[in-house]
Amino acid sequence: MSLLVVGSIALDSVETPHGVVNDALGGSATYFSYAASYFTPVRLVGVVGEDFPVHHKHMLEGRKIDTSGLVVEKGGHTFRWRGKYEGDMNMAETLEVHLNVLGTFNPDLTPAFAETPFVFLANGSPAMQRKVLSQAKNKTLAVADTMNFWIETQRDELYALLEEVDGLVLNDGEARLLTEEVNLVRAGRKVLDLGPKFVIIKKGEHGAMFLSAAESFVMPAFPLADVVDPTGAGDSFAGGFMGYLASVGKTDPASLKTAMAYGTVVASLNVEDFSLRRFQRTERDEIDRRLGEYRAMMAF
Amino acid sequence: MSLLVVGSIALDSVETPHGVVNDALGGSATYFSYAASYFTPVRLVGVVGEDFPVHHKHMLEGRKIDTSGLVVEKGGHTFRWRGKYEGDMNMAETLEVHLNVLGTFNPDLTPAFAETPFVFLANGSPAMQRKVLSQAKNKTLAVADTMNFWIETQRDELYALLEEVDGLVLNDGEARLLTEEVNLVRAGRKVLDLGPKFVIIKKGEHGAMFLSAAESFVMPAFPLADVVDPTGAGDSFAGGFMGYLASVGKTDPASLKTAMAYGTVVASLNVEDFSLRRFQRTERDEIDRRLGEYRAMMAF
Repeated sequence: MSLLVVGSIALDSVETPHGVVNDALGGSATYFSYAASYFTPVRLVGVVGEDFPVHHKHMLEGRKIDTSGLVVEKGGHTFRWRGKYEGDMNMAETLEVHLNVLGTFNPDLTPAFAETPFVFLANGSPAMQRKVLSQAKNKTLAVADTMNFWIETQRDELYALLEEVDGLVLNDGEARLLTEEVNLVRAGRKVLDLGPKFVIIKKGEHGAMFLSAAESFVMPAFPLADVVDPTGAGDSFAGGFMGYLASVGKTDPASLKTAMAYGTVVASLNVEDFSLRRFQRTERDEIDRRLGEYRAMMAF
Repeated sequence: MSLLVVGSIALDSVETPHGVVNDALGGSATYFSYAASYFTPVRLVGVVGEDFPVHHKHMLEGRKIDTSGLVVEKGGHTFRWRGKYEGDMNMAETLEVHLNVLGTFNPDLTPAFAETPFVFLANGSPAMQRKVLSQAKNKTLAVADTMNFWIETQRDELYALLEEVDGLVLNDGEARLLTEEVNLVRAGRKVLDLGPKFVIIKKGEHGAMFLSAAESFVMPAFPLADVVDPTGAGDSFAGGFMGYLASVGKTDPASLKTAMAYGTVVASLNVEDFSLRRFQRTERDEIDRRLGEYRAMMAF
């Protein structure tokens, strides 16, 4: 089944202990789309400025990502983020943000896009996420991401969103901020009380935790000796997760668990290079090989 | 097969967000022994003062732990630790340490104890650990723990120890201090370069990582909504790990992996109450039930 994502498309400038890139392709919807495209057709909704290099768009189209929902705003500038990772690289330090065309992004879905059964609302304002969700007419599964900024500034809109989505994906710090619980199992349960049927708490290099009313489980990150750039890891995880679910067209517990494993493995590939470079030299068979290694690691 | 442990026996005073205990039974060898005793006969080597309540000794003997290596030093005082956990409880703040009889602890193994095939050197000075190891005449597997204090003050003795043991167990901060590597896979590889055939890096609520020349794998912690007191979690992990290996008498990769899982599960039980209270109401069948849940969590 097909999968719709709405989120940011960015030109990122990133510094890590392994190097520097400037104005490299990034953004939540970009990482998500590429990661999901290993599994299923993707419909991308986003906005860029006239400065957005057309070869990036062609590259995504080469992945069979439908970019007909990608708006190029006349005279506008693409969203730009500049950040830095140090030490254990678990946290980005944001040095500059220029929202540019993203600041007024207010997408309308085409009739075809509005019929997409699997919907992912990548990080964005809860008001915008709700507006997109209200246009989706044929939802099998709708999952949202969020971040500290929205928890702090649009908590009521976020609460309203949480009553409307099936799942929420957020990181450990965000879960603690949202619920005021330090323990992540308790934090996850409080998120469930807010509406979603499941929540996934991402813990960076420590993996991810899944909670629903019936189940709780944790999956470690795939151990890596070389984390080059963590940018996009969470969105790649979500892309692998949602992409797999859309590919099997199911959301039962066993599929959710396999989807978590695929998300973990896809994210582990992404962080091995800057921007989307690692994905650009990765085929699906490598993902499946690493999934096999990951499964063997945890079998006892 | 039987299992020898040498390490501290303590009276701990601990404060966590869930409560307070004073002069409760603790110490690395105590947690380790109890955890291992679910799997195999344990030989405990340690020292206490005359103030050590005899009912603690009887309780351990009730677990079929051989306490003939427990020295009661005349006129001496038992090692005491006072600490506090806050926030996510991943780090103890030490408020007081009184080494007392532990400060001059210099154990001699009886001929029977010296024949024990599985040996665990719980946290202690590397010089003392080496002395004990040199007395063990029939080793199948010797594993050591260590901590920041020894890395900082007895690095050369620790290096000498690492050439003599089969495995090292330490936490993430200690691994980074020992190797000056932030990435834990790299840190683990550097530990292997120092001598041991395997290293286990404990990550508290984030689980543990195993590395040998042939394998690397990570196991998440068992997710818990109520972590009451993390004291002894690492030693309980080691006890479950070594206890299982001694019980099967094997150290092949599959046994090491199952041992990691048992260590994880035993540690998850220990932290659900203060001191050894959770263990005291836990039978082996509960450990096996939780192991089953843990296995199911990670199966995809």
